[in-house]
Amino acid sequence: MSSQPLKIVVIGGSAAGPKAAAKARRLDEHAAITLIQKEADLSMASCGFPYYVGGVFDDRNQLICTPAGIVRDPNFFQKAKAIEALVETEATHIDRAAKTVTCTHLPSGETRTLSYDRLVIATGATPLRPPVPGTELDGIHTLQSLGDADALRAIRDAGKVRKAVIVGGGLIGFEVCEALHLAGIQTTVIEKTDSILPFLDRQLAHLVENEVRRQGADIITGNGVAAFLGEDGKLAGVKLDNGTELPCELAVVAVGVRPNVALAEAAGLEIGALGGIKVNARMQTSDPAVYAAGDCVECRSLITGEAVRAPYGDLANLQGRVIGQNLIEPDSASFPGITHTGICKVFDYTIGFTGLNAEQARASGISDIETVTISGLDIPGYMGGKVLISQMVAERATGRIIGFQCIGPGDASKRVATVAMAIRGGLGIEELANADLPYAPPYSLALDHVIVSAHVLENKLKGLMRGLSAVELKERIDSGAECFIIDTRTPQEYEEERLGIGEHLIPVGALRSRLDELPADKSQEIILYCKVSMRGYEAAAALKANGWTNVKVLEGGVLAWPYPREK
Amino acid sequence: MSSQPLKIVVIGGSAAGPKAAAKARRLDEHAAITLIQKEADLSMASCGFPYYVGGVFDDRNQLICTPAGIVRDPNFFQKAKAIEALVETEATHIDRAAKTVTCTHLPSGETRTLSYDRLVIATGATPLRPPVPGTELDGIHTLQSLGDADALRAIRDAGKVRKAVIVGGGLIGFEVCEALHLAGIQTTVIEKTDSILPFLDRQLAHLVENEVRRQGADIITGNGVAAFLGEDGKLAGVKLDNGTELPCELAVVAVGVRPNVALAEAAGLEIGALGGIKVNARMQTSDPAVYAAGDCVECRSLITGEAVRAPYGDLANLQGRVIGQNLIEPDSASFPGITHTGICKVFDYTIGFTGLNAEQARASGISDIETVTISGLDIPGYMGGKVLISQMVAERATGRIIGFQCIGPGDASKRVATVAMAIRGGLGIEELANADLPYAPPYSLALDHVIVSAHVLENKLKGLMRGLSAVELKERIDSGAECFIIDTRTPQEYEEERLGIGEHLIPVGALRSRLDELPADKSQEIILYCKVSMRGYEAAAALKANGWTNVKVLEGGVLAWPYPREK
Ligand SMILES: Cc1cc2nc3c(=O)[nH]c(=O)nc-3n(C[C@H](O)[C@H](O)[C@H](O)COP(=O)(O)OP(=O)(O)OC[C@H]3O[C@@H](n4cnc5c(N)ncnc54)[C@H](O)[C@@H]3O)c2cc1C
Ligand SMILES: Cc1cc2nc3c(=O)[nH]c(=O)nc-3n(C[C@H](O)[C@H](O)[C@H](O)COP(=O)(O)OP(=O)(O)OC[C@H]3O[C@@H](n4cnc5c(N)ncnc54)[C@H](O)[C@@H]3O)c2cc1C
Ligand SMILES: CC(C)(COP(=O)(O)OP(=O)(O)OC[C@H]1O[C@@H](n2cnc3c(N)ncnc32)[C@H](O)[C@@H]1OP(=O)(O)O)[C@@H](O)C(=O)NCCC(=O)NCCS
Ligand SMILES: CC(C)(COP(=O)(O)OP(=O)(O)OC[C@H]1O[C@@H](n2cnc3c(N)ncnc32)[C@H](O)[C@@H]1OP(=O)(O)O)[C@@H](O)C(=O)NCCC(=O)NCCS
Ligand SMILES: [Ca+2]
Ligand SMILES: [Ca+2]
Repeated sequence: MSSQPLKIVVIGGSAAGPKAAAKARRLDEHAAITLIQKEADLSMASCGFPYYVGGVFDDRNQLICTPAGIVRDPNFFQKAKAIEALVETEATHIDRAAKTVTCTHLPSGETRTLSYDRLVIATGATPLRPPVPGTELDGIHTLQSLGDADALRAIRDAGKVRKAVIVGGGLIGFEVCEALHLAGIQTTVIEKTDSILPFLDRQLAHLVENEVRRQGADIITGNGVAAFLGEDGKLAGVKLDNGTELPCELAVVAVGVRPNVALAEAAGLEIGALGGIKVNARMQTSDPAVYAAGDCVECRSLITGEAVRAPYGDLANLQGRVIGQNLIEPDSASFPGITHTGICKVFDYTIGFTGLNAEQARASGISDIETVTISGLDIPGYMGGKVLISQMVAERATGRIIGFQCIGPGDASKRVATVAMAIRGGLGIEELANADLPYAPPYSLALDHVIVSAHVLENKLKGLMRGLSAVELKERIDSGAECFIIDTRTPQEYEEERLGIGEHLIPVGALRSRLDELPADKSQEIILYCKVSMRGYEAAAALKANGWTNVKVLEGGVLAWPYPREK
Repeated sequence: MSSQPLKIVVIGGSAAGPKAAAKARRLDEHAAITLIQKEADLSMASCGFPYYVGGVFDDRNQLICTPAGIVRDPNFFQKAKAIEALVETEATHIDRAAKTVTCTHLPSGETRTLSYDRLVIATGATPLRPPVPGTELDGIHTLQSLGDADALRAIRDAGKVRKAVIVGGGLIGFEVCEALHLAGIQTTVIEKTDSILPFLDRQLAHLVENEVRRQGADIITGNGVAAFLGEDGKLAGVKLDNGTELPCELAVVAVGVRPNVALAEAAGLEIGALGGIKVNARMQTSDPAVYAAGDCVECRSLITGEAVRAPYGDLANLQGRVIGQNLIEPDSASFPGITHTGICKVFDYTIGFTGLNAEQARASGISDIETVTISGLDIPGYMGGKVLISQMVAERATGRIIGFQCIGPGDASKRVATVAMAIRGGLGIEELANADLPYAPPYSLALDHVIVSAHVLENKLKGLMRGLSAVELKERIDSGAECFIIDTRTPQEYEEERLGIGEHLIPVGALRSRLDELPADKSQEIILYCKVSMRGYEAAAALKANGWTNVKVLEGGVLAWPYPREK
């Protein structure tokens, strides 16, 4: 090698940082690559923390090892990747003019200055804490670092805590809720806003709430934490905005994260309006020699075209890989943007989402949309099919699919991945409606749930079906509005389970011969449903053809009804 | 209604026919819709037959009922759908000039002539039988009709058959193999060509063979059935092309199907070169008043643009739905075409595929392709991840993904659905390589298997990795070619399991300090691998950077090695 090796410094040693470093190494065996990591561990699978805390597995090393079982410590990085990893070392200053980074070895206090040709900032994010009294009490945790996971796992293993609250009803809040519940701790999730899991449509969020309660955990919505209450410096309870006090020995705060941009900001790098480091599609900051990725940046939404913060582990790795390429061959790779895709497990439910929900779409200025909620099975009943409930969102004018959420005990993960790719490909409802997917009874219905979603949404767009959400119907009933409600299921189904909202039971097979039981006023609102609302839809078509003009289908039927039912 | 109701006749009462009829009904409450079905049953879930035969469920009605448990008999069709279904009735003649269909009620022999405004042909397909002696013997079955399923289920329940052969190593052959094996019958699949499951790459097919044998069933390839042997009119065995005789009391023939086009052909409708009824994107035959769908037609491949036969249940339903729309509003709907997507379960393996494999691509004139085989886990090891092995195919010039096959105990179904949508969206490797998929530990790795596939394929396209398949390496070893093989795993892994193909064990972490053990001749071929070949690839990059010029990676590593291993 005649030329000087390229000097690369990477700040942040969990997901995006190591990925950038590792990719750069594969493209340039001779570059000098240094990874600076504040914590003692490297390459932590943060997303696995809740499962470690909950006791799904016991070996902590599984969070930091390769698939072959080798812990990714500095020795591993040195030997397998020829990367120097400085752990327990905090980068404290970037001098962009001199192209140096100053860092401090935390245990010894020793300071070093490293010079770089190219720098990567992958400093991640820090959990937010609500600005309320008492946050200094013992017993208040977050779950962001491996140290946090260790602490919660120790609490689980000690088995002394009886009651816990989770502050924040987002993804991590519910993962921790499940973990603590698995540990035998009575857990309550407290959500300040009206609805948990803000990426979900309200009705779907309500169904998730029901599942959590069914499992024995509790949820309080529309009520924030006003104060943490303590005795002798120890947490003893929380006080809510409405004055209620809940006793608890443990609180886990999960109200979101704030990008770690202090270093970048001090170095004069541009920070976006959302508080993340600004980067272009090359993942380059406002200084072309400095790249940034992961939880500390803002990236672009492929749907809205706007800047977004998307603190997800998959994206951190993808962006890190793009940087790894650009470090060695500038401008050789781009990160195109995100499609807002994520997933989590909440007890027996999978909660998946991609694109925008209706509220998000409207907030982004995409207001001419149509949505549909359906329920159904993932695979045939004879193969043990499980329920899926989903909402799909499309742009009216173009038919382009812009969002999909899918929840339930069924395999929602596959459906969300499928629609995520459809959105990525810019497909419209018509294309999804005729998609050739892998069908066999162990894996799907002949017409998969996502295809049926597209069919029903197409029907709505064409005016073949007028839908009504459970939320809308409930409001209508509560307000005493006059409407004629028909349950189109069989008497047996009605006997086993029924809504009890003043409905008339007219099985779809009997409807055509019982039209005389329907309102004489053909303009009266008639609302139909069945278990999933397929028969409701068929019956609605028949009624419309017989002259009734205001016929609607309760979308998702009995399965998607989130409110108490008579039976 | 002042005008005459539209008269619609549908021939064929299983999937495509009823779907067309049902959709037409929803669009026109007043049309007169008649369904003609030769068999006694309607709306049979043929795809569920193997699971009924195998005893996965016992209630035969589950094959013909709605999700709510109502059998779809003529009474159901009349009541719920206002469709007249004539069962045990065979359509025997179409008079296109008179616009009539003649049919015979098989039990009574009575004949009727129905007139139509629009006609649908959905006559399905008939199993092929090998043209060999002995096919008249008792004990030779197919699995196409519900009657066939009843017969095989009765054999299972009687518990007398000890040995069976399946003639044909395709999807249905293996589904039946598993069903009979579950019933305690010793089963051998006989495949005339060299390789089972022709939509799979050879290496993957070989891995499926291993799984089937591991489960205790047997497979014979490259050897067809020359004759069925019998005693007293009863099957006693089969004789193979090479003379071997296999005793068996049961044979199930599953060597493909032939579209049922006799009626259409006799009516002068155009038949395609592949033997199916020719239709346009409206699913219209050469007579605009006559539509056809399902197993009896040829449709279009969205990848090659060519006509194909695609006898799949999902497509039959999709095409039927398109017809239902066009029956009522001519030219309102199109079926765009297929992407060759399918799936089946073979014991603990899922076998999924979409698009073309390399052989099919070349046969279709798409010859400038690159492929990659990888193995890996579906979800993290700490969550109980299971193995996936896949092959991805892309066009070199454009990067467009044109095929993907995925097998293994892991969740291949999700991965195939994901790539099927990517193919449908015309996405290239780069877009898939940066896809935003739903990631959480219960559902995927941070970089999902399909994304890693795209990464590795990208690496190959960029010349960053040179791959070698297990088939190629085996040939090389068997031919005594000189090559230096390195297993880059740990000593522990090597102790537990190893190929024993003359490899040298040099763990990737030790490689850089043991370069002196490598061939002095820098142009000598070096082949590296590990468990999945990720470390093999990393090590290869290091060797190339150190001057070796002929460095290759065994794709898929130890997990994808289909041949016997030392340990
Ligand atoms: C409990 C939990 C569950 C999650 N579940 C999921 C999930 O299911 N799916 C999903 O997609 N995402 C999930 N995430 C998010 C995912 O883990 C993050 O998006 C990802 O870890 C971000 O990677 P990163 O490299 O950008 O940042 P981080 O992983 O936060 O790593 C940044 C590192 O930089 C270090 N650092 C910061 N400043 C300095 C400095 N000045 N000097 C040196 N080092 C510094 C920090 O100590 C930290 O280790 C989860 C996160 C948590 C906490
Ligand atoms: C065992 C098995 C497993 C399968 N597994 C899968 C799978 O996992 N995934 C998948 O996608 N596909 C699978 N298939 C294929 C799928 O079942 C077919 O593609 C689908 O049934 C085709 O529907 P169709 O309506 O075109 O034809 P068919 O289902 O064959 O129905 C045609 C009907 O028309 C009737 N008929 C024919 N001629 C006349 C006439 N002249 N008059 C009156 N009636 C007539 C026949 O009796 C028949 O009932 C499987 C098939 C079988 C047999
Ligand atoms: C693992 C980590 C250090 C990155 O290192 P890495 O060497 O890129 O590791 P990976 O396993 O991702 O991939 C290694 C390479 O092998 C390739 N590869 C993977 N499987 C392969 C296979 N079967 N055959 C051939 N190549 C393969 C990959 O494509 C990648 O190469 P490329 O990026 O040059 O295309 C970094 O991602 C990390 O620290 N992760 C753990 C923390 C984390 O991700 N947390 C957030 C989520 S919980
Ligand atoms: C079932 C069958 C008779 C078709 O009848 P169908 O009435 O179209 O039945 P489906 O359940 O498919 O769909 C009914 C309608 O309800 C709609 N629907 C389904 N779920 C819904 C929901 N939750 N809410 C609202 N509408 C819904 C569908 O989109 C469809 O309407 P559309 O076609 O107008 O869009 C026909 O497909 C059949 O016989 N199938 C069994 C055999 C078979 O498929 N074999 C091969 C595979 S094993
Ligand atoms: Ca994601
Ligand atoms: Ca298919």
